[in-house]
Amino acid sequence: MTETAPRKSLDPKALAAGIRAGNRASLARAITLVESRKAEHRAIARGLIQDLLPLTGNAQRVGITGVPGVGKSTTIDMLGSNLTAQGHKVAVLAVDPSSTRTGGSILGDKTRMAQLAVDQNAFIRPSPSAGTLGGVAAKTRETMLLCEAAGFDIILVETVGIGQSETTVADMVDFFLVLMLPGAGDELQGIKKGVLEIADMIAVNKADGESALRAQSAASDYRAALHILAPRSPTWSPPVVTISGLANEGLDAMWEQVTHHRDKMSATGEFQQRRADQQVAWMWDLLQQRMMEALTGNAQTAERLKRLEGEVREGQTAVSVAVEEISSLIGV
Amino acid sequence: MTETAPRKSLDPKALAAGIRAGNRASLARAITLVESRKAEHRAIARGLIQDLLPLTGNAQRVGITGVPGVGKSTTIDMLGSNLTAQGHKVAVLAVDPSSTRTGGSILGDKTRMAQLAVDQNAFIRPSPSAGTLGGVAAKTRETMLLCEAAGFDIILVETVGIGQSETTVADMVDFFLVLMLPGAGDELQGIKKGVLEIADMIAVNKADGESALRAQSAASDYRAALHILAPRSPTWSPPVVTISGLANEGLDAMWEQVTHHRDKMSATGEFQQRRADQQVAWMWDLLQQRMMEALTGNAQTAERLKRLEGEVREGQTAVSVAVEEISSLIGV
Repeated sequence: MTETAPRKSLDPKALAAGIRAGNRASLARAITLVESRKAEHRAIARGLIQDLLPLTGNAQRVGITGVPGVGKSTTIDMLGSNLTAQGHKVAVLAVDPSSTRTGGSILGDKTRMAQLAVDQNAFIRPSPSAGTLGGVAAKTRETMLLCEAAGFDIILVETVGIGQSETTVADMVDFFLVLMLPGAGDELQGIKKGVLEIADMIAVNKADGESALRAQSAASDYRAALHILAPRSPTWSPPVVTISGLANEGLDAMWEQVTHHRDKMSATGEFQQRRADQQVAWMWDLLQQRMMEALTGNAQTAERLKRLEGEVREGQTAVSVAVEEISSLIGV
Repeated sequence: MTETAPRKSLDPKALAAGIRAGNRASLARAITLVESRKAEHRAIARGLIQDLLPLTGNAQRVGITGVPGVGKSTTIDMLGSNLTAQGHKVAVLAVDPSSTRTGGSILGDKTRMAQLAVDQNAFIRPSPSAGTLGGVAAKTRETMLLCEAAGFDIILVETVGIGQSETTVADMVDFFLVLMLPGAGDELQGIKKGVLEIADMIAVNKADGESALRAQSAASDYRAALHILAPRSPTWSPPVVTISGLANEGLDAMWEQVTHHRDKMSATGEFQQRRADQQVAWMWDLLQQRMMEALTGNAQTAERLKRLEGEVREGQTAVSVAVEEISSLIGV
């Protein structure tokens, strides 16, 4: 729909007003600017976000991950519908750098979340197409801010449990939820390292029918594993719950934990601290990224850099020598 | 002793020859150059390392961590002595950015490793004094190369289990050993997150006298915890052993695992791959570090950066706006 938007809709003031009024078309258009590769579009997006900044920060930001097949879409569709039924406005964003989805395949996301797709109090936005994880994440962060300004009070950021994307998402949300499959013994070995570290809660999904018992057993194992690790915050020991996204069982109790977490962390100031730290860390990430782009953007420097990297890899050139040479090339 | 070294000893050719011949005074002098803050010294060190590069890479590089009180010094002293008795040449380096030790307090390290300190086939070097973790680590990496060129075939890199130093050390060694205290139940909760991820082996120390049973019990718990996580390499599942550094019990079996690991990882090519990846990652780290220094080195830019960071932290300025401003200041 953004393709047919009239040119005047790029007017930042009009867009900002539309977003403040909760206009979905304005929101979608602004996100398109955020995701654009054109410098002029991004400049407008920056101005827009700066304008709307006072309206941001009021949502519960929740990251959700899990391997393919764990039932993420079904669970998010059900959870989101429960929340809109309670009067919330829910935005679902995705961070998936491997995604080849483009604007046209939004339908894919809408199909896999059938209830939310037709819910006037929900907004589903797929992962920005193609790009580095850092780039996709930056766009998702800004999209989150726009959604908050448009009045969405719950943001669910979904990611596939592959590569570094979980950590990236955990760094942009208040609460990180890990969905797990029921299973026991050897199956548990599939837990990706790092996930237990960043989980604020583990939910074993598909705790229904004949896999209910296996889900309980898996939950016990996860509890034991979490028990052995020092919690990330003295205020919060990550709980392990069982749910059925399909049968809508346990989702309310699960969400209570999210709210409980926010209350406890707000009381100690950790909530505010985490957000402030996330903002600053994001700024530094972007700065480093920008400088690396400057480094690899010059063809001659990039070529020399590539050759030196090969020599370092093969042990022909000492690291300090390579760094010295590159540094002098770019004058730092 | 380096203070009294004659000026001619800074001659790179003479130093390189001395190191090749295994001369300890030349080695110590070269390390002092690596650790120096003077640009001219570091330039000599770079040339030296580049010259000696073909002689490096032949040692077993093993990182050892553990909380204060776990018995690191006693264990390293005993392990190192066992290894020199078998004909190895052992260098012990430390990575501890919080260290305020200077050259003069090498005695401290020598006292805490009484046997190795007087062992002609051992070389103990404390952490470079004061500096960022990145700086300390860079110096330790280069010191490791110099030790290899001087004929040391086993490098033990020790670090206190605080902050990010374990990850940093794990990134410069072939094998990462985590020492743990005997204990059970609640005591186990002290396992720092992240340690289980990077451990190639866990050794529960003090498995002697009345704590022997507790050590066995702790080892079982660690095995269970490790079992639940996917191993970092399909080739290697980190074992859990019990040792007594004080009584010299279990140290040989422990070292056999280190050797076994190298054999298995070499056979699959993972050993070589890990080293090559470490080199390249190190180069990129240093480059980023250098560029950040360029950014914060200019007083005006640094001041503006600090103010923008505060505004971003308080939510007054959007991250993208801050990044744009800084980037234009430094022209990237």
